[in-house]
Amino acid sequence: MAGDRKRPLKTASLRAPTPTKSVSPSSKTHLHAAGAAADDDIKITALDLASAPLTPAMEAYFKKCEEKLGFVPNVLKAYAFAMPKLEAFVAMYNDLMLAPSGLSKLEREMIAVAVSAQNRCYYCLVAHGAAVRMLAEDAVLGELMVMNYRSARLTERQRAMLDFAVKLTAQPWEIEEEDRERLRRAGFSDSDVWDISAVAGFFNMSNRIASATDMRPNSVYHRQGR
Amino acid sequence: MAGDRKRPLKTASLRAPTPTKSVSPSSKTHLHAAGAAADDDIKITALDLASAPLTPAMEAYFKKCEEKLGFVPNVLKAYAFAMPKLEAFVAMYNDLMLAPSGLSKLEREMIAVAVSAQNRCYYCLVAHGAAVRMLAEDAVLGELMVMNYRSARLTERQRAMLDFAVKLTAQPWEIEEEDRERLRRAGFSDSDVWDISAVAGFFNMSNRIASATDMRPNSVYHRQGR
Amino acid sequence: MAGDRKRPLKTASLRAPTPTKSVSPSSKTHLHAAGAAADDDIKITALDLASAPLTPAMEAYFKKCEEKLGFVPNVLKAYAFAMPKLEAFVAMYNDLMLAPSGLSKLEREMIAVAVSAQNRCYYCLVAHGAAVRMLAEDAVLGELMVMNYRSARLTERQRAMLDFAVKLTAQPWEIEEEDRERLRRAGFSDSDVWDISAVAGFFNMSNRIASATDMRPNSVYHRQGR
Amino acid sequence: MAGDRKRPLKTASLRAPTPTKSVSPSSKTHLHAAGAAADDDIKITALDLASAPLTPAMEAYFKKCEEKLGFVPNVLKAYAFAMPKLEAFVAMYNDLMLAPSGLSKLEREMIAVAVSAQNRCYYCLVAHGAAVRMLAEDAVLGELMVMNYRSARLTERQRAMLDFAVKLTAQPWEIEEEDRERLRRAGFSDSDVWDISAVAGFFNMSNRIASATDMRPNSVYHRQGR
Amino acid sequence: MAGDRKRPLKTASLRAPTPTKSVSPSSKTHLHAAGAAADDDIKITALDLASAPLTPAMEAYFKKCEEKLGFVPNVLKAYAFAMPKLEAFVAMYNDLMLAPSGLSKLEREMIAVAVSAQNRCYYCLVAHGAAVRMLAEDAVLGELMVMNYRSARLTERQRAMLDFAVKLTAQPWEIEEEDRERLRRAGFSDSDVWDISAVAGFFNMSNRIASATDMRPNSVYHRQGR
Amino acid sequence: MAGDRKRPLKTASLRAPTPTKSVSPSSKTHLHAAGAAADDDIKITALDLASAPLTPAMEAYFKKCEEKLGFVPNVLKAYAFAMPKLEAFVAMYNDLMLAPSGLSKLEREMIAVAVSAQNRCYYCLVAHGAAVRMLAEDAVLGELMVMNYRSARLTERQRAMLDFAVKLTAQPWEIEEEDRERLRRAGFSDSDVWDISAVAGFFNMSNRIASATDMRPNSVYHRQGR
Repeated sequence: MAGDRKRPLKTASLRAPTPTKSVSPSSKTHLHAAGAAADDDIKITALDLASAPLTPAMEAYFKKCEEKLGFVPNVLKAYAFAMPKLEAFVAMYNDLMLAPSGLSKLEREMIAVAVSAQNRCYYCLVAHGAAVRMLAEDAVLGELMVMNYRSARLTERQRAMLDFAVKLTAQPWEIEEEDRERLRRAGFSDSDVWDISAVAGFFNMSNRIASATDMRPNSVYHRQGR
Repeated sequence: MAGDRKRPLKTASLRAPTPTKSVSPSSKTHLHAAGAAADDDIKITALDLASAPLTPAMEAYFKKCEEKLGFVPNVLKAYAFAMPKLEAFVAMYNDLMLAPSGLSKLEREMIAVAVSAQNRCYYCLVAHGAAVRMLAEDAVLGELMVMNYRSARLTERQRAMLDFAVKLTAQPWEIEEEDRERLRRAGFSDSDVWDISAVAGFFNMSNRIASATDMRPNSVYHRQGR
Repeated sequence: MAGDRKRPLKTASLRAPTPTKSVSPSSKTHLHAAGAAADDDIKITALDLASAPLTPAMEAYFKKCEEKLGFVPNVLKAYAFAMPKLEAFVAMYNDLMLAPSGLSKLEREMIAVAVSAQNRCYYCLVAHGAAVRMLAEDAVLGELMVMNYRSARLTERQRAMLDFAVKLTAQPWEIEEEDRERLRRAGFSDSDVWDISAVAGFFNMSNRIASATDMRPNSVYHRQGR
Repeated sequence: MAGDRKRPLKTASLRAPTPTKSVSPSSKTHLHAAGAAADDDIKITALDLASAPLTPAMEAYFKKCEEKLGFVPNVLKAYAFAMPKLEAFVAMYNDLMLAPSGLSKLEREMIAVAVSAQNRCYYCLVAHGAAVRMLAEDAVLGELMVMNYRSARLTERQRAMLDFAVKLTAQPWEIEEEDRERLRRAGFSDSDVWDISAVAGFFNMSNRIASATDMRPNSVYHRQGR
Repeated sequence: MAGDRKRPLKTASLRAPTPTKSVSPSSKTHLHAAGAAADDDIKITALDLASAPLTPAMEAYFKKCEEKLGFVPNVLKAYAFAMPKLEAFVAMYNDLMLAPSGLSKLEREMIAVAVSAQNRCYYCLVAHGAAVRMLAEDAVLGELMVMNYRSARLTERQRAMLDFAVKLTAQPWEIEEEDRERLRRAGFSDSDVWDISAVAGFFNMSNRIASATDMRPNSVYHRQGR
Repeated sequence: MAGDRKRPLKTASLRAPTPTKSVSPSSKTHLHAAGAAADDDIKITALDLASAPLTPAMEAYFKKCEEKLGFVPNVLKAYAFAMPKLEAFVAMYNDLMLAPSGLSKLEREMIAVAVSAQNRCYYCLVAHGAAVRMLAEDAVLGELMVMNYRSARLTERQRAMLDFAVKLTAQPWEIEEEDRERLRRAGFSDSDVWDISAVAGFFNMSNRIASATDMRPNSVYHRQGR
């Protein structure tokens, strides 16, 4: 039904009412007695932007998220104030992270987390740390990517991949042919070099949008893959 | 005609033949006697990726570039090895840089250049430096964005915008509510704050993909807006 | 029995035999199919140092650890090659982290993690991240300290405390009276200022010894407080 | 005529009257509707220092500048408040940049720009970027030195020279014999090593004096060598 | 006598009366006409912490300091507000810096100064700079450790040791097996690697406690070993 | 006599014979048993550049140095391979450091040392550290400038001056009108602002030439002003 697609997104009100349960701030040492993630599913960003009506494509996509993940990732709700922005983000994200590539999905998530650790991005570390834990079926690998990927026991291939991604994050102006050659020596094709660069680049974008808006991750991520 | 859209992009061969004119390397002090930009329109990136057949949408888009700009920007040719990547990039770029926004097109290009200067990205400084020169009808403003935006005589609004974008580039983990509040005090709406963040984020992505692949700008940019 | 105390520490062999279960490295994408923490309880540091016989005091202390925690923290096993070093470390640690102070135990652990995040120390982030989760009864607060303490919803007191500790970690030469005054304005006494400084200082030491020796945290920490 | 040489420099009044043409600030997006360089030939620095009478030597030198360049570089006007400072600056500059050396004039200007790019000095990037464009007869080489010398296709000799100059700029305390040896292996004599160091050093000085005083480049530079 | 040990430390009043000799601040260019170290033996830290009664062990230790050094180091007086902290500090310090080790006492002091130079810690540079001068019987070696250890003519062993200690100070997260291997190649045992790490770690702690509290070195250090 | 002035400088042979006294390297822990400054008066730089005949002006200047200081500073001997370079350096140095100025000579030397500390330049810290000690008649003030000027008890004027000079050294691109205004509020004229900038700039040059050439200070400096 046409009217349906104009309906504002019910689950994504960015300025939700405060929690109903009254909390005495003095009852715990830290501020939010209900837990540090208390508001993270309610007030998703620091910006006051009303959700726009979902397009049919996005409505279907959100439904698919609910079915497959059990929830709509907050980053999608944050983008939902403007359908063209949401759709462009979803298209790019899905191509980079889910489409066929010489990099496994786990490898792409490892890049996401190592880059986000360099940029100390809370949203992306939580959401993609969970992805590493689940794809690797290894909770500790997720922690290592968050804390210091250099401490992980990685294959030479993975180490070369993450060194490139993190140097590209911290000092992009110093990347040169020798850096690409190291990737090739580790077995990556030129198409893989693009994908490593594009995933690292994408999270350098997302980290900054998340940090700029104080974007909060769905609290459910914290328990995934443990 | 369906076959047409499978045709490889004629103008975007990423591994073009070397220049026919023989050049004596000793005839000038620097390496490329034919000029530092000699190969920039021929060998667009350091990666060996064959162009894919353009989709009809992209074929139309490239044609529109030729008509409006007189050329297809090299970044598009670089992405043309994979249509889904090209289409997602084009969709996001056009929404961010060309769609209606509380930020003028010039302001968005100023952010692009100030961010690219922080990341010392040759491709983006050349291409978007030209855009600033042309949109502002002021060649010197373009130079200032490339060299040090703090040396420009900016309005308070523009200065706040660029300070936010450059801090978000250099230390995204230190952006907090006070940074957003400064933007609001300078007259930006929350929607504008998103756009500043998204443009800054986008060039943090593009800078890295360009640096990772040694992407070369079309030589025509250098003369634009002078 | 006197002879007992000369007995080498049975549980802390720093060069233990490799895992008995044969693992095919190709069966998973990352190197250690048995999990990224596979060796962390077996080979505690990268140094080949034989455990010394525990002194009675240390034997009692290790027993107390087993009883209270269920295990001996690997940092203690790492120090156990030299009893004077172990005893001095334990004395300083217990005074700083467990003795009465104007700072709660949780606050001291929050400093430990925020400092260790600045130094990207895997051992300390794992061990003290767990401590924050348990003391706060809030898993997410632990994640926030690891990922970016600036993203946490902290009291003014806690924020001032962590800002001081992290500045002292990153730029100790720039700490001046104004920094101490901010702590006093947030309600800290001069004795508290010492304790904040001493805890931050201590983890700047421990982080470096752990990083220098590739110290591995007990794998049990990962599951604590979740 | 003796009296003449006491005459204050007519062309170098550092506090000139404001532009006569009235400008509506709202007529363009950026502040100076007359262009970002509008005041650069009028108010040369942020300091209020009256020009001193030129000595005969300096009067002759300024005349020579007018004849050869068509203008007196603003840096000379900025120094003209004190003849001993101006004369010492001119003597050092001319020896370093114009006297015989194992380095070509273009090479010395390339060092000037690469160092100034590291220090993001607007004055020096404009003035010496123009010099590179003109000496190389290659506008793009000038842009590359401003934007990221690592993106230029340089000879091994030029690359070694600029790597040394930029490391000396960013981390002078880490220059050691191995750095000098790399220059020697690239064909530089010990006298050339001095000259590379002295030119890099000189622009580390000039960059800072220009930045400290907000020194503005003659607007004519922007059009040179394009 | 038991009562004695409860007596507050007479020589360590952290809030001593101001100098009796009146000083005209205008009589010299800098603030403290009586010398830049004027208050350093009187007001030891910026914190207002009363000395606690010395334990017998600490009373004996302070007496030993007076006998052997001629004074009690100010760091000990600063810790004397809390006996458990003082005793733990003394135990750790004496083990690290004075107990038998594969590193000579001079080598340990060289590490102390090189680390303190990286952290620009006034207290530790003064106190341990003096120790290097005296142990080496070479005043200039002390200056070199303070100013830039890379400028000293060191043995390969010493250079490897200091490079490790300073990298561990500046970028602990980047220390890896190759760094340890370089130490081993320079002749250090795994036990020596621990000691280098532990001394470097200890001064990363002490530097921060000293900087956090504005701890002042005994003025006598300045004249030692000259 | 004309011939005299062509005579190569006798005291400045940059490649002097090695010390005649045989030294057993094993007799001390560090490499140069004769002291860390053993060669500093003999082999002044790492470059093999023969001294040129002194011009009469420079011969007179060197004689004046011998008479007033008791020695010729090694920096002058290092420049003596090329008279135009030596003369330009001397002219600029003498104007900046010795001519009348709103800054006292001590203040100019304090800037010299604080800048050289930021750049960790051994030559300049030794030579100008001695100058601060002597001009202030306060050895400790010299140490403070070398170690961390923020730890010195400075007047507001001196602190503002050094903060400006050190920011100009570390981040010249961030100096703006507010920085100059702070100097003016502290009582500095615009002419003083120039002098602070010019002295800071000059040592940013000298530090780099000294570091690039491994220039060694005269050993006599170490004992001056103690």
